[in-house]
Amino acid sequence: MGLVVQKYGGSSVADAEGIKRVAKRIVEAKKNGHQVVVVVSAMGDTTDELIDLAEQVSPMPAGREFDMLLTAGERISMALLAMAIKNLGHEAQSFTGSQAGVITDSVHNKARIIDVTPGRIRTALDEGNIAIVAGFQGVSQDKKDITTLGRGGSDTTAVALAAALDAEVCEIYTDVDGVFTADPRVVKKAKKIDWISFEDMLELAASGSKVLLHRCVEYARRYNIPIHVRSSFSGLQGTWVSNEPTGDKVEQAIISGVAHDTSEAKITVVGVPDKPGEAAAIFRAVADAEINIDMIVQNVSAASTGLTDISFTLPKAEGRRAIDALEKAKEAIGFDSLRYDDQIGKISLVGAGMKTNPGVTADFFRALSDAGVNIELISTSEIRISVVTRADDVNEAVTAVHSAFGLDSDSDEAVVYGGTGR
Amino acid sequence: MGLVVQKYGGSSVADAEGIKRVAKRIVEAKKNGHQVVVVVSAMGDTTDELIDLAEQVSPMPAGREFDMLLTAGERISMALLAMAIKNLGHEAQSFTGSQAGVITDSVHNKARIIDVTPGRIRTALDEGNIAIVAGFQGVSQDKKDITTLGRGGSDTTAVALAAALDAEVCEIYTDVDGVFTADPRVVKKAKKIDWISFEDMLELAASGSKVLLHRCVEYARRYNIPIHVRSSFSGLQGTWVSNEPTGDKVEQAIISGVAHDTSEAKITVVGVPDKPGEAAAIFRAVADAEINIDMIVQNVSAASTGLTDISFTLPKAEGRRAIDALEKAKEAIGFDSLRYDDQIGKISLVGAGMKTNPGVTADFFRALSDAGVNIELISTSEIRISVVTRADDVNEAVTAVHSAFGLDSDSDEAVVYGGTGR
Repeated sequence: MGLVVQKYGGSSVADAEGIKRVAKRIVEAKKNGHQVVVVVSAMGDTTDELIDLAEQVSPMPAGREFDMLLTAGERISMALLAMAIKNLGHEAQSFTGSQAGVITDSVHNKARIIDVTPGRIRTALDEGNIAIVAGFQGVSQDKKDITTLGRGGSDTTAVALAAALDAEVCEIYTDVDGVFTADPRVVKKAKKIDWISFEDMLELAASGSKVLLHRCVEYARRYNIPIHVRSSFSGLQGTWVSNEPTGDKVEQAIISGVAHDTSEAKITVVGVPDKPGEAAAIFRAVADAEINIDMIVQNVSAASTGLTDISFTLPKAEGRRAIDALEKAKEAIGFDSLRYDDQIGKISLVGAGMKTNPGVTADFFRALSDAGVNIELISTSEIRISVVTRADDVNEAVTAVHSAFGLDSDSDEAVVYGGTGR
Repeated sequence: MGLVVQKYGGSSVADAEGIKRVAKRIVEAKKNGHQVVVVVSAMGDTTDELIDLAEQVSPMPAGREFDMLLTAGERISMALLAMAIKNLGHEAQSFTGSQAGVITDSVHNKARIIDVTPGRIRTALDEGNIAIVAGFQGVSQDKKDITTLGRGGSDTTAVALAAALDAEVCEIYTDVDGVFTADPRVVKKAKKIDWISFEDMLELAASGSKVLLHRCVEYARRYNIPIHVRSSFSGLQGTWVSNEPTGDKVEQAIISGVAHDTSEAKITVVGVPDKPGEAAAIFRAVADAEINIDMIVQNVSAASTGLTDISFTLPKAEGRRAIDALEKAKEAIGFDSLRYDDQIGKISLVGAGMKTNPGVTADFFRALSDAGVNIELISTSEIRISVVTRADDVNEAVTAVHSAFGLDSDSDEAVVYGGTGR
């Protein structure tokens, strides 16, 4: 039996009862002969409460101090979890990100892991301990300051530790049963996926699936660490994310799932002179404001005016800053006006099978059309097609596409393209 | 202008308003040209809340994990305080005990400081920062584990940092105006002491005065760091504790103050054979249970029986364990029975003047006698007399002694012995 890294999110350790329940599950893994490393997030609402306190003392809390503050959250949950495990008669020690050797760059609030040197964790394991590690945090390489990894950081901590410790698997425990073929809150007939490739999972994460974040999957793929996403409540098998299908019965589906995202807005730059360098100037202005954009579409230029429109999508939260940045550059770029639209949604179909099956795209558009959903923007990769629609149409669109590709739980036959069946 | 260490307790930083108020006071010191190092405790009830959580997951939380948990408290307060200071336009950085170089032994929950290596604090100060340091915590020299210093640990952190940084003064901010001639809640006419020697302060602390803990004063005396105890609310001058009187008008009083303590209990070992080695056997049994005893009195042996009684006082919280330890050793020691009494109180008169003034003792007993207070045990040092009475008599006894020695705030003339006036 090898080494297992388990990660528990804030909802799994929301209170003393949750911590005791998680402790029992960890001890089970230990009893089964595994060496166990546990990565834990802050309890339930702790982080939000700390952010609230920070806002009470300062409207713009400094990065270094904000990280120092937030990391108190995992310190509490990890110490309590270690106590609960010891109370079950097993040895456990908790470690901060710094003690666990999670070395990051110095970008506070969204640091990136540079290296993991888990010497103390290895020692603790060799001495028979279960090692509990604070998720979401590290220490900066140059200044030795405490850093945090940003949203979803605990998953990344878990995968990074699993890689550094050469773990058999990184188990991500959460409050859902795994990754589904669509968001079960929207598509009632969504099914749990038994296995999905890193590539498809990356596309789903980039397209709005919230179960695993892009960054964590990327890390796991780079170091080839199998991830097992599962419920901390049920104990059932969840979804395996890895290079090779696991288990006997699993075959790769053509279509892995349908993701949707209503967190984005669309900005249209109207009346851009259709000449070289205009698009570059627009996206340079946006990039300089450190805004991540998603889809970009440039209309065909109207011959009569020599002007064109350029639309792009971006997180709603960054909309205000993008508009400000573009307004400032208006004279230099020379466009007419800006349109801002935050009533959009994005639907994405993801599956490695589609790259060899051109019919997928046609069927996707047909399903949307049959559901009466109008398409505003289109973007494709080798294993994904995304469209932007009205936000109001998203639920209907996801449901229609999910059904059209035979993903519904009561569907007898999945749609088969070419040789690869489901 | 030199370097000042300021320490703020949990009641001074109980909420966001408190933190902002404290931040303003700190910035004042900086504006006055000082280099400022601030030691801060956990906010208000944070520590109690964390202890409560620990008890919910484990009836006997392990020392290492308990320390990891508790240190989250200062992490929160120090980060918020640094943010609040930065919000006032001044540079501040917060540091954990470990980052500040507070090196301790490995005795979790009550570690002792072995060394302070404040290199990062010095650098932060040299770069123009106000340095905020977590009180109460350090890192163990051998295992690099997080430790806590036990009760009153933040005061000790402040004094230790002041010594390591060669500070001009260590200011202990609290919710009272300073050290008083008696507990103002008991003696309405108690006066604030302007200056008191380390020795007298040590005796007061050992005798029940809660403003400064013994350990912190001991540390300050060893390194000759003047302590200024003052209110974080009023801004008034408080009490200076140092080797030499400060200011013009201050002269050393014969009597510094009257302390009392109702936190102790008395154990009487009845029917002890009056032969060599018996007392040693009793106190070895108690010491092996790691119980600190305070006063000891052995009765004169009754000639008819050859048996004697031995009484001692100890913290009530340790009473159960002491009784258990003695019961176990009963056969070996050979006493008859044990009596446990937790309805006692201790009154102590402290003052360096009394060692050259034998009349002090007589006047002390006279004052108690006039107040109708019966004395059960007596213990003396060169600069202190302590008596044990019924707990019910304590308030009356303290008030009577305070008045008899001319300490009352409306008293025109202090009692004068020999040459040293007041």
